[in-house]
Amino acid sequence: MEPPLSPSSSISYHMSPEEFRRAGHALIDWIADYRQRVESLPVLSQVKPGEIRAALPDQPPLQGEPFATMLADLERIILPGITHWQSPNFYAFFPGNASEPSILGELLSAGLGVQGMLWLTSPACTELETHLMDWLVGMMGLPEQFLSTGPGGGVIQDSASSATLCALLAGRERATNFAVNRRGGTGRLVAYGTAHTHSSLEKAMKIAGLGVENLRKVEVDEHHAMRPEALAARISADRAAGLTPAFVCATVGTTSTNAMDPLAAIAPLCQEQGIWLHVDAAMSGSATICPEFRWVIAGLEGVDSYSFNPHKWLFTNFDCTAFFVADRRALIETLSILPEYLRNEATKSGAVIDYRDWQIPLGRRFRALKLWFVIRHYGIEGLRYHIRQHVALAQDFASWVRGDPRFELVAPVPLNLVCFRLRGSDADNQALLDHLNASGDLYLTHTKLDDRLVLRLCIGQTATERRHVARAWARIQEEADRLVAVEPR
Amino acid sequence: MEPPLSPSSSISYHMSPEEFRRAGHALIDWIADYRQRVESLPVLSQVKPGEIRAALPDQPPLQGEPFATMLADLERIILPGITHWQSPNFYAFFPGNASEPSILGELLSAGLGVQGMLWLTSPACTELETHLMDWLVGMMGLPEQFLSTGPGGGVIQDSASSATLCALLAGRERATNFAVNRRGGTGRLVAYGTAHTHSSLEKAMKIAGLGVENLRKVEVDEHHAMRPEALAARISADRAAGLTPAFVCATVGTTSTNAMDPLAAIAPLCQEQGIWLHVDAAMSGSATICPEFRWVIAGLEGVDSYSFNPHKWLFTNFDCTAFFVADRRALIETLSILPEYLRNEATKSGAVIDYRDWQIPLGRRFRALKLWFVIRHYGIEGLRYHIRQHVALAQDFASWVRGDPRFELVAPVPLNLVCFRLRGSDADNQALLDHLNASGDLYLTHTKLDDRLVLRLCIGQTATERRHVARAWARIQEEADRLVAVEPR
Repeated sequence: MEPPLSPSSSISYHMSPEEFRRAGHALIDWIADYRQRVESLPVLSQVKPGEIRAALPDQPPLQGEPFATMLADLERIILPGITHWQSPNFYAFFPGNASEPSILGELLSAGLGVQGMLWLTSPACTELETHLMDWLVGMMGLPEQFLSTGPGGGVIQDSASSATLCALLAGRERATNFAVNRRGGTGRLVAYGTAHTHSSLEKAMKIAGLGVENLRKVEVDEHHAMRPEALAARISADRAAGLTPAFVCATVGTTSTNAMDPLAAIAPLCQEQGIWLHVDAAMSGSATICPEFRWVIAGLEGVDSYSFNPHKWLFTNFDCTAFFVADRRALIETLSILPEYLRNEATKSGAVIDYRDWQIPLGRRFRALKLWFVIRHYGIEGLRYHIRQHVALAQDFASWVRGDPRFELVAPVPLNLVCFRLRGSDADNQALLDHLNASGDLYLTHTKLDDRLVLRLCIGQTATERRHVARAWARIQEEADRLVAVEPR
Repeated sequence: MEPPLSPSSSISYHMSPEEFRRAGHALIDWIADYRQRVESLPVLSQVKPGEIRAALPDQPPLQGEPFATMLADLERIILPGITHWQSPNFYAFFPGNASEPSILGELLSAGLGVQGMLWLTSPACTELETHLMDWLVGMMGLPEQFLSTGPGGGVIQDSASSATLCALLAGRERATNFAVNRRGGTGRLVAYGTAHTHSSLEKAMKIAGLGVENLRKVEVDEHHAMRPEALAARISADRAAGLTPAFVCATVGTTSTNAMDPLAAIAPLCQEQGIWLHVDAAMSGSATICPEFRWVIAGLEGVDSYSFNPHKWLFTNFDCTAFFVADRRALIETLSILPEYLRNEATKSGAVIDYRDWQIPLGRRFRALKLWFVIRHYGIEGLRYHIRQHVALAQDFASWVRGDPRFELVAPVPLNLVCFRLRGSDADNQALLDHLNASGDLYLTHTKLDDRLVLRLCIGQTATERRHVARAWARIQEEADRLVAVEPR
């Protein structure tokens, strides 16, 4: 092939610094406005499948366009297709809360544009992250085995799903002395959760080549928490059948009802049996910044790994999952690869952390910046205040439900999630949910408990205040009035 | 537990809209300035292990701090620990280029703070992504089997590593009729790459429970590209040994030398054998936006999956890997999970895409925004111009190397990566590399070819112009002069 001629360097299609300042200021202002008006927008997007695509041009532009047209299209095309996770009226799933300092941290991360795969590729990216993970151990009341100054340590993952997968892989390798890594699986390893463990465990069983048939759903108590004696029985039965119990996933705050698996009983059992115990505290883990909520992690000093998501309930935008291991060697040995082009003196010296060996992908963004900004902007006191407010609002909401004879609470409310239903048919409850969500005034989601449809209201959005929760309850009562008027039971 | 009293809502630790505007404008300006001065900063960070951590306070703050102190610490503590991937003097690894429009897209994504795990959780997040992936098929000259309007489709992944893993998993399941997902691995599945395939394939073999011993490194030709007849022989031998060939990873532009595995010969072989063929074009795939470089993907119409990284060389900040499959059902069936709390009418109808089934994690950011902004800002013509310029500069650099008898080119230069060395010992070349990188004037990395140390210079940074490349060559010659003076050979 003929080498092409080098074109003149005088032409450039890049955005000039002045254009970038102008566009950047405009976008910052747009976001500030958005966050102020978001509570007036319908929470759940009301578009039909295909509507957004139909509004987009069939072909990409041949010539560039000004930034102002993109901002206009954002309003015209994109916004109607947004389900507003940052609305104070968002009570669905678990929250994905964010805050202004975290948005600025993400902006800075994009502006620096560095890769943190190795210490060498930006030492500050690795060292700030390690330092913050050690800060979190103290701030959140976590046990010392997770400090990087000992044999353990923490890392930021993209999601609790990935943290569970990494833990499962490390557990798989520890149980087989790294034989699966070398020779592949045997179909003889078993893992344990409950019917309420997050679905990412089932997904991880597939990804890790362990097979969903080797995932045991341990029996739960009346509050949907794992029964330790049932776990012990399952483990014995599997050993008797010649299988190898390798991994247990316990949950601090299940997705359906915020049930708390009893770590203090499960951890000694796993230690005795030599089984890797991972604890998934995806949302509820943020509560432990307040000393009065640390009872939810009692027993954590006996576990192998732990994760919670500052991107759910600690005002840090997605993605930011804090993942801790008690023995980093097992994790690193499981995921390590070292091709020639990544070799360097710092890695060879063993004096540094290379986080690519702590996660599934190779590349990584400078995610510690947003968490750093959040912790420094709020301070521990500010974070505690808002977490306490969310919990108190949920307790208030639960008391309102208790006080209305048309409704029932269907699970304990340890923190900020309320599970409730109309004392009526599933159809009534589905209609209530559909009417509320279609109104755009608030967004709730559902689960099923004992085969009955249950509504979930989770309070954790950054801007949610008492007036929003009070209005949500008023709207729920209003729709219930209407349902009772139309369909008398 | 006693429910705590609901605190008054009048207190708030959140950043006010006015504070956010002020801090946001300041940060935009900081980034604009940074991108202008970055070429004067030492490219490779010169800090020693532990220096950054030592400058950080031991404890997190109890009370919040003003944003100005964080910006000051950014300059004082963080910046010295940054290896400047956005410097025009960065020639290491593969580039991770970014542009102003992509930075703004990332900012918008953080500001909206939505989750794209389901269509329902923000329809625009899913539909814009699908639409852009279809745009890319046209823009990049990819075959029609990757369009979402047929049985295939595209998705944005965080990295080429994750794309390779997803492809491997789908291939694993297709080869076993989903038996590994159900019952776990058997250690009898085999995958194929070469010694130059990216290390993420080896990592994926571990993660997927297939075992690195079941990864075959197929023999390469004199230009380090896979030899199809050697692949055929390996497959036959494995079948004869009772193993099941399940997956081939071919590379368009290997990391070491930008070698091109011959897809046109490999694809028919894999089709005939019923083996999933994935093509990893992590960096070089961006070149196909220019029709004259599409020869690198000749034969792509016969493959099962393909990925390239707009976050490497298409001016879109990390993370943005475009991953395409010819048959989305195989991928979705491999990764799908559906717990009650994620069930909804839109998903049930089958009329929408739920991208959580196309990737490892559940949660996902609105990454399509940054790619949308990039394509619209530059237009196809602008993107083509800058890609062509990078290729032309690399060809110029190669010709300069060719013209200096002290140096040799050690591999063909199909696009923008030049592999070269001093005609001397590995120690000389290591010294040259170390002196250059320690000077901070530029950053190069190395590889090994035929057991010799080789320097790699990859031109793909957003702001790299002729004057930077010319200066890089002048500095390389200067250090070579000094080495020759000090250590005469």
